[in-house]
Amino acid sequence: MSADWAAEFPLLAADRVLRAALEEDVGTGDVTTLCSVPAGARTRACLVAKEPLRLAGLPGFVRTFELLGAGDLSWDLHAADGDDLAAGIRVLDVEGDARRLLTGERTALNLLQRLSGIATMTARWCRHLEGTAAQLVDTRKTTPGLRALEKYAVRVGGARNHRTGLFDGVLLKENHLRAAGGIGPAVAAARARAPHTLRVEVEVTTLAELDEALASGADAVLLDNMDLATLVKAVTRTGGRALLEASGGVTEERLRTIAETGVDLVSAGALTHSARAVDLSFLFEV
Amino acid sequence: MSADWAAEFPLLAADRVLRAALEEDVGTGDVTTLCSVPAGARTRACLVAKEPLRLAGLPGFVRTFELLGAGDLSWDLHAADGDDLAAGIRVLDVEGDARRLLTGERTALNLLQRLSGIATMTARWCRHLEGTAAQLVDTRKTTPGLRALEKYAVRVGGARNHRTGLFDGVLLKENHLRAAGGIGPAVAAARARAPHTLRVEVEVTTLAELDEALASGADAVLLDNMDLATLVKAVTRTGGRALLEASGGVTEERLRTIAETGVDLVSAGALTHSARAVDLSFLFEV
Amino acid sequence: MSADWAAEFPLLAADRVLRAALEEDVGTGDVTTLCSVPAGARTRACLVAKEPLRLAGLPGFVRTFELLGAGDLSWDLHAADGDDLAAGIRVLDVEGDARRLLTGERTALNLLQRLSGIATMTARWCRHLEGTAAQLVDTRKTTPGLRALEKYAVRVGGARNHRTGLFDGVLLKENHLRAAGGIGPAVAAARARAPHTLRVEVEVTTLAELDEALASGADAVLLDNMDLATLVKAVTRTGGRALLEASGGVTEERLRTIAETGVDLVSAGALTHSARAVDLSFLFEV
Amino acid sequence: MSADWAAEFPLLAADRVLRAALEEDVGTGDVTTLCSVPAGARTRACLVAKEPLRLAGLPGFVRTFELLGAGDLSWDLHAADGDDLAAGIRVLDVEGDARRLLTGERTALNLLQRLSGIATMTARWCRHLEGTAAQLVDTRKTTPGLRALEKYAVRVGGARNHRTGLFDGVLLKENHLRAAGGIGPAVAAARARAPHTLRVEVEVTTLAELDEALASGADAVLLDNMDLATLVKAVTRTGGRALLEASGGVTEERLRTIAETGVDLVSAGALTHSARAVDLSFLFEV
Amino acid sequence: MSADWAAEFPLLAADRVLRAALEEDVGTGDVTTLCSVPAGARTRACLVAKEPLRLAGLPGFVRTFELLGAGDLSWDLHAADGDDLAAGIRVLDVEGDARRLLTGERTALNLLQRLSGIATMTARWCRHLEGTAAQLVDTRKTTPGLRALEKYAVRVGGARNHRTGLFDGVLLKENHLRAAGGIGPAVAAARARAPHTLRVEVEVTTLAELDEALASGADAVLLDNMDLATLVKAVTRTGGRALLEASGGVTEERLRTIAETGVDLVSAGALTHSARAVDLSFLFEV
Amino acid sequence: MSADWAAEFPLLAADRVLRAALEEDVGTGDVTTLCSVPAGARTRACLVAKEPLRLAGLPGFVRTFELLGAGDLSWDLHAADGDDLAAGIRVLDVEGDARRLLTGERTALNLLQRLSGIATMTARWCRHLEGTAAQLVDTRKTTPGLRALEKYAVRVGGARNHRTGLFDGVLLKENHLRAAGGIGPAVAAARARAPHTLRVEVEVTTLAELDEALASGADAVLLDNMDLATLVKAVTRTGGRALLEASGGVTEERLRTIAETGVDLVSAGALTHSARAVDLSFLFEV
Repeated sequence: MSADWAAEFPLLAADRVLRAALEEDVGTGDVTTLCSVPAGARTRACLVAKEPLRLAGLPGFVRTFELLGAGDLSWDLHAADGDDLAAGIRVLDVEGDARRLLTGERTALNLLQRLSGIATMTARWCRHLEGTAAQLVDTRKTTPGLRALEKYAVRVGGARNHRTGLFDGVLLKENHLRAAGGIGPAVAAARARAPHTLRVEVEVTTLAELDEALASGADAVLLDNMDLATLVKAVTRTGGRALLEASGGVTEERLRTIAETGVDLVSAGALTHSARAVDLSFLFEV
Repeated sequence: MSADWAAEFPLLAADRVLRAALEEDVGTGDVTTLCSVPAGARTRACLVAKEPLRLAGLPGFVRTFELLGAGDLSWDLHAADGDDLAAGIRVLDVEGDARRLLTGERTALNLLQRLSGIATMTARWCRHLEGTAAQLVDTRKTTPGLRALEKYAVRVGGARNHRTGLFDGVLLKENHLRAAGGIGPAVAAARARAPHTLRVEVEVTTLAELDEALASGADAVLLDNMDLATLVKAVTRTGGRALLEASGGVTEERLRTIAETGVDLVSAGALTHSARAVDLSFLFEV
Repeated sequence: MSADWAAEFPLLAADRVLRAALEEDVGTGDVTTLCSVPAGARTRACLVAKEPLRLAGLPGFVRTFELLGAGDLSWDLHAADGDDLAAGIRVLDVEGDARRLLTGERTALNLLQRLSGIATMTARWCRHLEGTAAQLVDTRKTTPGLRALEKYAVRVGGARNHRTGLFDGVLLKENHLRAAGGIGPAVAAARARAPHTLRVEVEVTTLAELDEALASGADAVLLDNMDLATLVKAVTRTGGRALLEASGGVTEERLRTIAETGVDLVSAGALTHSARAVDLSFLFEV
Repeated sequence: MSADWAAEFPLLAADRVLRAALEEDVGTGDVTTLCSVPAGARTRACLVAKEPLRLAGLPGFVRTFELLGAGDLSWDLHAADGDDLAAGIRVLDVEGDARRLLTGERTALNLLQRLSGIATMTARWCRHLEGTAAQLVDTRKTTPGLRALEKYAVRVGGARNHRTGLFDGVLLKENHLRAAGGIGPAVAAARARAPHTLRVEVEVTTLAELDEALASGADAVLLDNMDLATLVKAVTRTGGRALLEASGGVTEERLRTIAETGVDLVSAGALTHSARAVDLSFLFEV
Repeated sequence: MSADWAAEFPLLAADRVLRAALEEDVGTGDVTTLCSVPAGARTRACLVAKEPLRLAGLPGFVRTFELLGAGDLSWDLHAADGDDLAAGIRVLDVEGDARRLLTGERTALNLLQRLSGIATMTARWCRHLEGTAAQLVDTRKTTPGLRALEKYAVRVGGARNHRTGLFDGVLLKENHLRAAGGIGPAVAAARARAPHTLRVEVEVTTLAELDEALASGADAVLLDNMDLATLVKAVTRTGGRALLEASGGVTEERLRTIAETGVDLVSAGALTHSARAVDLSFLFEV
Repeated sequence: MSADWAAEFPLLAADRVLRAALEEDVGTGDVTTLCSVPAGARTRACLVAKEPLRLAGLPGFVRTFELLGAGDLSWDLHAADGDDLAAGIRVLDVEGDARRLLTGERTALNLLQRLSGIATMTARWCRHLEGTAAQLVDTRKTTPGLRALEKYAVRVGGARNHRTGLFDGVLLKENHLRAAGGIGPAVAAARARAPHTLRVEVEVTTLAELDEALASGADAVLLDNMDLATLVKAVTRTGGRALLEASGGVTEERLRTIAETGVDLVSAGALTHSARAVDLSFLFEV
């Protein structure tokens, strides 16, 4: 099962990110290691989860050391992306050149801890939705340059991706609607002009606007910052004619009650902009 | 005062990051805006703090729209990097091409919210240290590709930067020490070989190791994961012969008590790897 | 009207492409011009359509010379992207540094002629569809590296873009369907997993498969290489339950008859992979 | 024989182009394939010529999948660049990871079809020249970013490359000549200043200018848009004192008659700016 | 006169080089300047030649500060590329932001000193050739990444460029000749296959080979490491049938005597691989 | 011993530099080789030192050919970075594809000759310091883009690196001091603000300033352009309270006498900005 994720890890994006990260961390050289560790020395190290977590980004961890030119490392992987690990679980063992392992450690961990942090938070939030019909989705509130990787981590966490960027989804917000002369004309314009592979979603803040959106034939409606009572009414009024996405002010505490209103999707920027890194240690053997 | 920060904003790094962010968000075009907002339409928008925060990254916010080619925007800035803003405070007004303002919004906010999030968390943590002699410092646990920007945000928050990467500081950890044959030989090797512009810092976990580090003439000692009582003893024993940095398990709750042990520096990876984004809105006028 | 297009010209992509093109054309210098044209000499030139065409890419033409550092050019534009020009029509006049104008000429023309070639061919094909309900759409069969620009040219030509890449549209082809265990399971999997902003399209080659696709609730169906009679039956059988896209073997000759079958969309790779460049001359004044 | 071409395929340029193409096509992921094809599934596919063609770019086709990280593909190549293939000929068989093969297909084909299209058109044009002394040459009218690859395809097609860019050939056109004070001074300036490894070519439009060019000692003369009768006179008058290149208005129909005038070279921008892609299919086995 | 050079300074190449240089020098920030110089402070500085030199690269010097974002500098240039300056001559005055001027100083000087070093050495060598018919030419022995800039500096120094790279000149050396089956077949193959805009040059080490080269119709012959007497014989034997280039072991001392043998060109790698930087100071006013 | 250096060769930086160098040298192809050397031909070549030298950059030499895609070369290395070689010593033998070996030769040699040139000059200068307590250090006067590689060569030569850039060392020069209000305030500001991993160094030109620097607690003092007598006094007066670095006007002739004054460090820009390339030949076997 977990092998699924490794197969869709965005390798090209990871390479670009990791190269930049190595340049900014290693720069002209790891002076500490070069001074103290003899060339050619070999060591063994293991990667250990220091707290319960959902693993995401392991292919990037391994890739970091390859980019450093450490071709002769021998890896022994005990877990894979998508696995839920308890604190203390050993993720992998590796044996190889001591200098390369020490030099790449921080860069490799920085990416893995961030992606696993997102997957872990996402998985925890998803558990709150169990038994409801709602799905958790992410947003475009990602770290500059890391979008493909962070959206991957969200999927590993069990949630679904919203549109990737401005190019692969139509989401008509207040300003678009006003500029286009209202919801009806805006939806019609999008239908006529946007790629037919894209659905048309409209953001609304009131039930009256929802009615308008439904009348316009929108495929999905984003219900912005509505209270629970209004969400319930929105669901009833829609009656399945469009996908309903609740958004705005979504916290872990409110998540389940929002889902229980019957909306189809709950979107949360926090998954990517405010997940904390989880703790993993790369331990060198004595 | 606040103008200080804008003057040292890392522009070259921001440009690189923002170009990548725009490519990943805008890609082949903002289909929603192109469908709904007429070419040439102009609008006014303002940026507002939605919660109390320390601002960091405003030059990057403005730069995002320049990179989109929106040369004719007229900006009216009311605040600057380093300012502490209350919820509701208006950061800037802008007037210009409606399409460009809508298209650049998310990319501009993503960077600003992250950097301000780091500065805000850092500033809050720094307040816990007021009246102590300790300084808060960051780590290399930064987002891949954003190191220069995140370290800038830490400075705006009032803390000090630790080394930037592996090239601009010597920090001998357990593995380096063991590989070099002990603390004494490791420090001597670093003294002889590392650029003389760099200090030599040694990581220790016990008071015995601290004694060894002091005897070796290390400039600074990182006290890893020591409890408060041990930290106090370490300070006494050191008697100013080296800078002391407390590290490991630093939380906001423990921060002040750690500082009160008398250490010179307290380092915390959380500032960069786990700061949550703060809330700022870019509001378009009706 | 024509100003619309300039406003959505993909500037970032054009910059990347033009920089690469200038490096490959100018390289270490335009030896001919440096040998023969005195530094500081100024000249006037005009851009003229040499055959009837739909203009696309003019912002890129101008941008080429800016990238060469020729800041002091004075441009006088008489036409804009989207205009249909007769042979002999003057597109612009420019006055400035003779060396820069001569050096940038070919790079600027190469892009403009290609994009205008696509727009011109697209516009001609679109005219064949006048009076039918079908829309012409492009494909992913674009020139490596130029996708954003070529898809822009298709829009300028009056057609609509299909999905940009593999990320912004679900199109289940034979192999996907087989791997997923049939049309029904494949559509269900896509519904559950792909971003909800994307429609689900299925490629079919027979009416039986079309029935399956409709039963599965696909939003759109690509009818691959069907003859006219079968297309007519497909339209009847579908009865508006899904968008129908005719694809495969679409030539200019067959275009209208295909459209008259009642399909919603006709897609043609030829628009981008086989459009010939149109003729525009950059004439220097004597 | 055909192995010759693979050995000079411009690998570095292809890598740059293919990486950009994969980023623009795959972006954040191939949602269709990820939804429908199980991780780890394997498949067999073959590449087949759908029309008669001269193959060019096969090393780039294979390289595309390597860049996607699909290291475990097993290839069985039955043809090579430079081969003339009949419709239906199988070019290669491949067995490997189904997801990677599906995801890379379009990018791999886009380059191969374009390069083979150029080679095929070039080969057809070259056949018209058989038995004449003239050689077909390309121009700088190439696709932005693809020059090295397209010039390679022209060579595979059997024609010869003109200069690569502005740096590796001197071609004095009307404006250069006027700026330098005439043909004589322009040629003398080029002789004195341009690298001695470059020949000096002059563009002329009349026989009087040709005489001037010959008197100036030009190595080659480009006869711009001359009619057949004038070309014949130009050849006679030149008597082998310079290479003669016919250019302007060269169509497939006029090609042989132009060549029969006795000129040494016939240059045609159409080879690169207006070749249509040839049809090749990548077929997955049931 | 000197304005000529600024007009052909390779700006695109300089931009690429300077960006990389600024990233490697400034990195995460100029800590010294940020600590000590107040934001907003302004200063005046001047650039002074500290030894006699031929200036080359001034546009790059100014450009460095523009890339740092210091748009408000006011420059007063007193000299230009190509000028011969005595020690003590003031090249320019500038007034502006103190931080940016201090931060950019070293990067700006590094390029200017290297390029001026090359131009100065080249100019001195060229003076040894005065009164002879020989021209000094450079080689491909340039600094990785700086070829366009260094070849520009050679031109500013008064010498002529040899081919830029492997693509813009045919130079058949011993191995090529042997592989092709001798000088005659090699030259014939090059004539038939290389772009007709390129001359064909052959490297020989004996007079017998020279005869062969002349018989083959080579345009130019490189006389490799011949002694003076042999060079004289080579010139006589050639009688103007080909350009003769003396190469190998060319030192400043031997330069004139080599030239006096009557060869057309003398090539020297030392111009680019062994020129020392000349001394220029950027002095800040008290 | 020599294996030490290969292990710290900056591979990522070398890759970036070599790719750029190959693009500028090979460009659209090595026309000479493609015309004359049959595809698939194989050859043997050896690399030979043509003068006494200290080798630096061998991993980059080998890497050049890998980047050209020549995976099937078989290398036999007889020496390594850090070795002192006599003229005539064979560095390596290689057997492989003749075209790739010929095409990559110049790019591979350009880097190796430059880096070995720096290492050789550095080693020679270091010998002058034998028996003194002073260490030779480099500066930031490096070739744009090559800093990591050139600083590596300096280390291979036996000297020590000064700071890498503006980010990894505090060096307060005259202007910083004046801007900060004197040496005392400047040092205090740096202590308070710069990363604690960095030492603080002050540049002084008189003994009075030295006293001030010592009083301020500076870690190191750069003695700018002082004569020998003053250097002696500076050493005496300092009495070990700070590291002393002599700088300015350091020539090979003056090096030892400067060192004998008792300073700790002597810095010389000449090591990187004015080292001449050493002579190594890549000889193809007959």
